[in-house]
Amino acid sequence: MAQAPIGVFDSGYGGLTVFKSIRALLPGYDYIYLGDNGRAPYGNRSFETVHQYTLECVEWFFRMGCPLVILACNTASAKALRTIQQRELPLIAPEKRVLGVIRPTAEVIGNYTRTKSIGILGTKGTINSGSYELEIRKFFPEVRVHALACPMWVPIVEYGEYKSPGADYFVQQYLEMLLTSAPDIDTILLACTHYPLLMDKIMKYLPTGIQAISQGEIVAESLEDYLYRHPEIEAAVSKGGKISFHTTDDTADFDKHGSLFLDTKVKSEFVQMRTGI
Amino acid sequence: MAQAPIGVFDSGYGGLTVFKSIRALLPGYDYIYLGDNGRAPYGNRSFETVHQYTLECVEWFFRMGCPLVILACNTASAKALRTIQQRELPLIAPEKRVLGVIRPTAEVIGNYTRTKSIGILGTKGTINSGSYELEIRKFFPEVRVHALACPMWVPIVEYGEYKSPGADYFVQQYLEMLLTSAPDIDTILLACTHYPLLMDKIMKYLPTGIQAISQGEIVAESLEDYLYRHPEIEAAVSKGGKISFHTTDDTADFDKHGSLFLDTKVKSEFVQMRTGI
Repeated sequence: MAQAPIGVFDSGYGGLTVFKSIRALLPGYDYIYLGDNGRAPYGNRSFETVHQYTLECVEWFFRMGCPLVILACNTASAKALRTIQQRELPLIAPEKRVLGVIRPTAEVIGNYTRTKSIGILGTKGTINSGSYELEIRKFFPEVRVHALACPMWVPIVEYGEYKSPGADYFVQQYLEMLLTSAPDIDTILLACTHYPLLMDKIMKYLPTGIQAISQGEIVAESLEDYLYRHPEIEAAVSKGGKISFHTTDDTADFDKHGSLFLDTKVKSEFVQMRTGI
Repeated sequence: MAQAPIGVFDSGYGGLTVFKSIRALLPGYDYIYLGDNGRAPYGNRSFETVHQYTLECVEWFFRMGCPLVILACNTASAKALRTIQQRELPLIAPEKRVLGVIRPTAEVIGNYTRTKSIGILGTKGTINSGSYELEIRKFFPEVRVHALACPMWVPIVEYGEYKSPGADYFVQQYLEMLLTSAPDIDTILLACTHYPLLMDKIMKYLPTGIQAISQGEIVAESLEDYLYRHPEIEAAVSKGGKISFHTTDDTADFDKHGSLFLDTKVKSEFVQMRTGI
């Protein structure tokens, strides 16, 4: 198998916060990032729709040669990953791998809590899927998980309002709802890749003694460990540190937002995403 | 040509505010409503993407037999209608008609202003297209048009926050930006079908003497006039007052939101929308 970059996928820009951590920890590999901005946001879509869109994008990465694709999107990880891993992957590319962000997070998040009570904030799709409760129970059966959907946070981030006073009401609202329902929570997981950009506001309204955890570093460390344990996949990844960005919608928009998310200049290419082509 | 319902299209729920006005004025016709929720919102997408999605939905209406399709969506009217009318329609269905919401609004909006200065609020797609300035200039060359995108208003409505205190900041913010840039405005057009649900908040922050105009009644009256002037199209529309709702995403979600928008029970059917099928 010829060497090719690691694929990093998200429905939009959010996955760039995870990509940033991966790239910081593992700068020697090549990466292709794809944002399905033309059909974003995934957060409120049905299982069938999220599965169909995610599968089309995974197939695109495979056509680009990628031996490994990271779904850096909680909604896609919750609603599409299992089906792709179990049903499609063995048929279309048994030698390739698709990984998500939920499993690696679930494997370690229980170590952060002393009260054995965790809050999970995410999109409606992620929360309603129940994926985090299910996965965390496997590794930390003693931890109580309290999940809440925060649908306004993604548009606040996407439209650049995450530092504006208008964000405060919606940050405070969801945190209060969560902590009122479970006052013993000492750890809150930001289970959506957009939410780290709201960290300043979240810290402003979080009572002392409660910590908020982003997924970026967790996922990056898990990927490093995965590549160490799977040398045949590691050997198939191309090296050199090259990065390319792709979007299914307007490239100028992607470049503007992407540069904000990554704190560096982004230049993307357009990809036409159509079922059946 | 066998008779068939009038098609009413929107990227999501917003078009239901227009449909509500159409149905109130013209209850005797049959209607099919389609929301492309699986790929909504269109507001920030590129011209090519909006054109592709809208055309696919128009072709679906044609397969359902509809002799007339209303694009009850400002973004689709701004970015896709002209191309569909001029390029695709003559080839695929020369006997059918596709109408938008911008032209009928532009034909009358100049009658509302005494200061000859109008504000237009819409999605980024609608505003950046410049369609309203262009169309209004044809009918009211003496009217000055001041346009502003309000990207946060659609998610606020879609996520049911339009009556919450969290909406206030974003309603006040955009109105202030508009009126600071053009203090002589006496009429503001809500050029997005979601915005009428924010009317209470808009009236709260709008200075006395400035009016806010929704498109629903304007579009309904224009349709009545159109059917009167085009008896061959009117004859092709089926009568009886039957309505059906369709969505490209989760039907339970559509029914819940749709019922809120229409103040009546909605029961929708799923439609698979794929290019090339």
